[in-house]
This record gives sequence, structure tokens and C-alpha cells, in this order.
Amino acid sequence: MSNVASDFITEPNDERRQQIAKQLGEFIDPDKVRIDEESLLGHGCDWTKLYKVNPLAIVFPKTVEQVQQLVKFARAEKIALVPSGGRTGLSGGAVASQGEIVVSFDYMNQMSDFNPVDRTVVCQPGVITQQLQDFAEEQCLYYPVDFASAGSSQIAGNIATNAGGIKVIKYGMTRDWVAGMKVVTGTGELIDLNKNLLKNNTGYDLRHLFAGSEGTLGLIVEATMRLTQPPKDLSVLVLGVPEMAAIMEILRAFQNRMPLTAFEFFSESGCKLTTAHGLQRPFETETPFYVLIEYENQSEQDAETAMEVFEYCMEQGWVVDGVISQSESQAENLWALRENLGECCAPFTPYKNDISVTTSQVPGFLEDIDAVVSQAYPDFTLVWWGHIGDGNLHLNILKPEGMEKEEFFSKCQAVNKQVFEIVERYQGSISAEHGVGLVKRDYIQYTRSDADVALMQGIKKVFDPDNIMNPGKIFQS
Amino acid sequence: MSNVASDFITEPNDERRQQIAKQLGEFIDPDKVRIDEESLLGHGCDWTKLYKVNPLAIVFPKTVEQVQQLVKFARAEKIALVPSGGRTGLSGGAVASQGEIVVSFDYMNQMSDFNPVDRTVVCQPGVITQQLQDFAEEQCLYYPVDFASAGSSQIAGNIATNAGGIKVIKYGMTRDWVAGMKVVTGTGELIDLNKNLLKNNTGYDLRHLFAGSEGTLGLIVEATMRLTQPPKDLSVLVLGVPEMAAIMEILRAFQNRMPLTAFEFFSESGCKLTTAHGLQRPFETETPFYVLIEYENQSEQDAETAMEVFEYCMEQGWVVDGVISQSESQAENLWALRENLGECCAPFTPYKNDISVTTSQVPGFLEDIDAVVSQAYPDFTLVWWGHIGDGNLHLNILKPEGMEKEEFFSKCQAVNKQVFEIVERYQGSISAEHGVGLVKRDYIQYTRSDADVALMQGIKKVFDPDNIMNPGKIFQS
Repeated sequence: MSNVASDFITEPNDERRQQIAKQLGEFIDPDKVRIDEESLLGHGCDWTKLYKVNPLAIVFPKTVEQVQQLVKFARAEKIALVPSGGRTGLSGGAVASQGEIVVSFDYMNQMSDFNPVDRTVVCQPGVITQQLQDFAEEQCLYYPVDFASAGSSQIAGNIATNAGGIKVIKYGMTRDWVAGMKVVTGTGELIDLNKNLLKNNTGYDLRHLFAGSEGTLGLIVEATMRLTQPPKDLSVLVLGVPEMAAIMEILRAFQNRMPLTAFEFFSESGCKLTTAHGLQRPFETETPFYVLIEYENQSEQDAETAMEVFEYCMEQGWVVDGVISQSESQAENLWALRENLGECCAPFTPYKNDISVTTSQVPGFLEDIDAVVSQAYPDFTLVWWGHIGDGNLHLNILKPEGMEKEEFFSKCQAVNKQVFEIVERYQGSISAEHGVGLVKRDYIQYTRSDADVALMQGIKKVFDPDNIMNPGKIFQS
Repeated sequence: MSNVASDFITEPNDERRQQIAKQLGEFIDPDKVRIDEESLLGHGCDWTKLYKVNPLAIVFPKTVEQVQQLVKFARAEKIALVPSGGRTGLSGGAVASQGEIVVSFDYMNQMSDFNPVDRTVVCQPGVITQQLQDFAEEQCLYYPVDFASAGSSQIAGNIATNAGGIKVIKYGMTRDWVAGMKVVTGTGELIDLNKNLLKNNTGYDLRHLFAGSEGTLGLIVEATMRLTQPPKDLSVLVLGVPEMAAIMEILRAFQNRMPLTAFEFFSESGCKLTTAHGLQRPFETETPFYVLIEYENQSEQDAETAMEVFEYCMEQGWVVDGVISQSESQAENLWALRENLGECCAPFTPYKNDISVTTSQVPGFLEDIDAVVSQAYPDFTLVWWGHIGDGNLHLNILKPEGMEKEEFFSKCQAVNKQVFEIVERYQGSISAEHGVGLVKRDYIQYTRSDADVALMQGIKKVFDPDNIMNPGKIFQS
């Protein structure tokens, strides 16, 4: 799989690396230029382990000026750049396979200029998500974008992949929390996007173009993030659901009565995994699907309303059993049933798919995909979970014991075409929140038309005329 | 002021108009092609009355296919197109001065495919904002973007200008309510943007590029809009504020305790105007500024909290008098003090400015601009109001009785440079919500850098290689 234009250096050797390191050391602190094998392998990829890792060098700039100099250098030398954050991506967006220079923001990780009226804080690109969440808490505020890798993912990476997670139903995606950002384009120019304004209708909002651009338009060198009021006392319900179609009725019944902060689901196969890892079942009844609902207790009335809706759902037969948290620790335990799924799947080398449709279509969509994969590989275990209130499903296919990883992955990939044809038929997305990177690149036409991709390619040329910014990610470039 | 590329037909005569009408009639219903003076003058401009109105023809397509044919025809004939919605714009974005064909969406105004689970409804471009609001209400839902011209503005125009209004502090701008849209680009291609998905990280989100693009990238031919739960029982407070700086303290005090659905302000000069038009003063005390706060009574506790914060603000001296609505009709009367301002100013031929800064900077910013304008023209009355919770101020300069309109406008324009220099110094926006169009085009550099504008021009070329889509709006093209 070629992911860099053919005139790039594709096979760096030691001599070439030494030479480049010397040149880079002229404008980046020499101890922040690394060409040792550990650094190259460690910083040259993300959580996907599917691609050859072969960067030319890893650099750790400390200032915006150094980033600009680096881009100008890379442009002059026709060397591609791969931005690197917390490297927690699942789509190969931060993989350097073809002699690229990896730009790590590990040493640009400070926060500054907190403004309590605007509720904004300026972040360098390498600020860790959790660091921002903790800072917000210290200010009695809240940064609401949250997901499993919050402890290591970095803020610029979150923006570049428009990270979602478990609170999207109430708080939206990362793009919704960026007041402004500074970016260095493929020409080395520094552009200030939106100046942190709440309202600014002066032409195209390029902030939104960078959110989800996966480093293909330029490097995010600063982001001013918005914070909000923390949620009040949260309650968690887990409900046992006999049929997928009922989940949509439950969603509608709750949303019509009260705002929700989360609406998640997981399959019984998932429940089996987490309970095998020491968690308690939410209740004795075993059901094919479970829904996890979180809401804010803004008044005493809310608990009553939730109980009324729960009882209504029981009467309708949509729910056959349920439990509601009575304390913060119980809420945490219930959340663990959903949140520990990724970790519990990991030993089974899961093949992951992150797909979405409009919420109302989820039941038929899930059924169709489940049928296709189960028919092709009746021995594979399918674990479903996801942010079902957003129409976002995570399908995890577990590797049967004894099967070679290569054989397993190639079998999963063989069924991809059928899965994505169903996605296309439902007008869905082949990547709801993980991004495209390399993993989904050759399937993008199932969600975006050729004309649509051509527009993206044209836009990339405007920002990156020499095709040095993470080339080959999202689409061929 | 030239706003169309020089090779366009700039002086259409009757013969030319007849000929074009005949050609257009080949693919658009002949009675939907108009070249009579009333249609040309009526549909060739927006609420700005500053520009010569001189379109070649007005067309009213009825289908997406007709729109595509029209764009291909315009491209072949090198004729520019100006999209026309409710024509309520204040920046000249829908003005046809140079022999353009105006594309009116008055006959594409149907809603369909309401989905109660997704809470979405598909709108043709010409659906009136109020029509969508009313439809939502019938479904026990809510379309929250609201502003003075909701009774005539159209949904595609709202998207193209990313309309804001009085509820932005809670609900955001129009862009936040677009689930998906279909657009026809400058090549006549039809592109489906986002397919109404809540989560879709497959590359650049071109929806957000079209929101606020003022027709320069293409024509919006369909939009799927999201609806939400209606707010519960709303209460309105109006507070008398002796000093601008106190307004920010009041905002912070309230926001730290409870979510707000509106935080607006107006000056005593504004209060004088509306009360001269029959409204009652909110209370006897006269103060330089008034704040209008709206919040949702989600529980009985909210009224108590609001009273506590109000009393705290009184104790601090930030507020000297206040009133709280005790009924829906009282709430409406208090809102009228703010909402009737535009109408009450109209007889004074006001010169309008729509500017913003980050919210915390509003007091210094307002003071600096007020000082500059008052010093230059001590005889002019300045009426301030705005969405101050979003940092958005509307400055209305009233024409003194007896002064000619031309003289007045030229005097106001003379002081623009100084006003915009202050905007630039505060890193603010020369157009918070009205858009750029023609009115602000030659001032855009006060908010967007040359490199930033060059990127926008490059993007326009990708979507509209022949520069036929509303050329000359936002920036020179």
C-alpha cells in the first residue's frame, strides 16, 4: 500500500538519517531530534499494528517558530511530515511508513491564559486530554469530551481526528469545543483561525475544516478550548432489552421527557466478557442487548421522571429488567460494564469497525451486518457496543483461539466489502469517530462520492501545494 | 465598486434579457423566468439599499435538476448567479448589480420526511424560518434559531449566512442545526454533505464550509434540519446596570449558577426609543445599560437561584434595579424592550454595525468605540444593543433629522476605519452574524489576514472554477 508520493525518499538508511538529523538540529534543539530505533518505532505509529513503521526521523519542536521552520525545510527538501500526538488512533493516521519526518508535540504541552468569563483556556498541541479535564475541574468547570484514551491522547490529535466518545449525545464532538486555533499550513504560514470568538461570520470557518483533517492540511500548533459548567449529580440506568428495535423506542421515550448525557449499548457477548473479568452482572436476567442511560439530576423530579419512563418501557415490553445507580460508586460500576469492553476484548486481537447510520436506522443496520458477518464466519464471536444515541456502533470481531493473526485479519477484511456495502445502502459512515487514516482510506467511496473526494483533494492542494502534510491519509494525494 | 469579473455582461438591455429569458425557458418553466422591472428590482437585492440593482433575469427553479441545468447553462454562458432567499440580509450578499441571474428559491419551499427518533426534517431551500419553527411546535419539538426576520428569511439563506440571533448562548448558530445538506457546486455537480449523520469522521466536513459561505461555493438545494426538545417554562429578568463592566460580572455570576437561554443588553438610548413607541419602562430607575436574562425553570429551585444571584448582584452594586416576569405575557413585554429596537430605529435610517469580541473584552471594546464615534460626530445618537453573552454588539448610529441620507452614510463610513481598527486591536470580528457580502468586503482584512483570505479564494476556485457563484461577495474573486 503506497501512501507517499513516489518522489519521496522511501528507504532511509543510517547515513541519510544522520545527515537529516544534523540539518534538523540547526533549528530544533539537537536533543529533540531522534533517529534511534526505539524512538523511530515508538513514535512512528499509532495503536494500529498493521503497517511497516519506517520514519526518517522524529522531531520534538518546542515553539511555533520551530514548527514553521520545519515545514519550510520539509517543503524545500520534499520530505513528508506526519503529525504525532498521543498516538492512540485506530486508523493509521499517525503512521510513518515511507521515510517521513514525524512531528511529535510531546514538548509543547502547556496550558495558559485561562479566562473565567469566556471559560476558555489556551492549549499547546501536546496537552493531554485528561490534563485539560483535570484543569477544568480545578476551576469548577468541565471539559466534556471523554473517551477511553483520554489519559494519553493529545488535544491537537483530538481536534485533527474530531474525537467523539461517550458524551456526544449532550456535548457534541471535539470540534464543538474549539474556540480558535493556530495552524501552520503546508507552506509554513501561520494562520489564526477564528480568534476565539463565539460569533464571527467573516467568510469560511476554517476551524471546522481542520477539525477532522487528520494532519493533511497543516499542523495545529495552538488551540483555545472552551469549558462549561459541570453536570450536576449524575444517575446511571442499565436496562435489559430483548430486541434491538426496542432500543430506539426507549431512546425516544426518554428523550421526550428529559435530556440525557449518555445513551450507550452493548451486546450480551460483551457482558459475558466484562463479567468474566470480575464485573458483576447488572441484574440476573440475561438479554441480548443492554442499554446504559445517564442523566443529570437537576431536581428531585428528574429521578421520578426517569422511573416513570422506565416503568412505561417495562409495560411496553421494551425492557425486561433494569437497575439504577444509588450512589456515585454504583454509577461507576455500571459504566465499567460499558467502558471496560475495549480492554476486555484486547486479548482476543479484535478486528474493529466503527460505523454509523442515522439513529433511527440502527436496528435494521445492526441486524443486516450481524447476519452477513455471522454467516461468513459462524465461528467468530461478534461483540457489539457503541454510542447508540448517536447512531454509532462499534463492531468487534474476536479472533478464535489458535487462528493466526494474519489469517484472521485477512478473513475479516474479506467481509469488509459486504459490511461497507450495507453501510452504503443505509447512507451511513464507514468511520463514525475513528477517522479514515490508512485503514479506511480505500473504502472512503462507500461514504463519500468521487466528486466529494475530488473536492477534498482540491482543498488539500490549496493548503498544502507540495503534498507534504501527512500525504496518503484519508484519500490518495 | 466592481463586484463581478470583468468579462461578464454588465449592462443587460431589454433585447439581451428577452434572449436570455427564452434560453432559460427551455429548462425552467417559462412563467418562472421573470424580466419585468418589478421582479428585477424586487428580487435583485436584500435589505441593504446601498447598491444599484441590475440583474439580467430572475429565475424560480422548482427542482434540483433545474438548478443543476441552470448552473451548467450559466457556466457555459459565463453569467454569474446570485442566490436569493428571503432577502433579509444586511450586508448585500444577495444583491445583483452587474447583470447576474438571480436564483430565487421561493417555489422550493416544502418540508418532508420528518423523523421523530432522529428529530430531523428535510427542508427545501426556500422553507421560511417561521414555517420550520411552527412545524417543530406541531411535533412538540423546537427549532431554536430565532431572530427578527424569522417570518421571511429562508432556511438556505440562514445556512449560507450562518444566521445567529437571540438564543445563540444556549443553542448556537444555524450551522449547529444542519444534519446534512445537498449542494450544487459551480460545476453543476450535486453533492450530498454528511448524509444527516450525527457522527461521521470521513475527512473534511464540507457542511461547515457551506455554512457562512454566502453563496460563493454553490447553491444549497436541500437541508435536513435538526429539532430539539422545547424549553420548559421560561422566565425573563431585566436588570438596570450603571456600568458596562458590571455586565460581565453579572454574566459570570449567573452562568456559574444556572444555564441561560439568553443574555442580551441594550443602552438607555435604546430604552428611550422603545418607550417612546408605547412600551413601558421595565422599572422607574434610569440606567445607562439594561441586561435581559432568560432562563428555563427546570424546577422550582431555579426561580430561587435566580433571585439569589440577582440579590448578590444588587449587593455588589452591579445592578441597581430589576424586574422578573411573573407570566408569559410579562416575559413577552420585557422581550419587546429588546426585540423592538430594530423596528424603532428604522425611521432614523440607522447606520448599522454588527461586531464582536471575546465576551470578557466587551466593556473596554464598547467604551473605545463609543468614544471614537461620539467624538467624531457628537450630534449623532448611538443606540447599542446586542447578544452580549456571545460578545456580539449591534451599534446603530441614528441619522440626525434634516441631514441627507448620503451625507449621513458617508460620515458614518468615514469613521468605519477607526471603528475597525479598534476591532482589529481587540482581535474581534467586523461581522459577528450579518456576514460580509459587499458591505464589509473591503474591510475583511481587519478580521482575516491576507494569507487567510488567500486560502478562502483558493477554496472558492475548487468549488467554482469559473467564478460564477455570487462572485465578488465576501472577498474579491
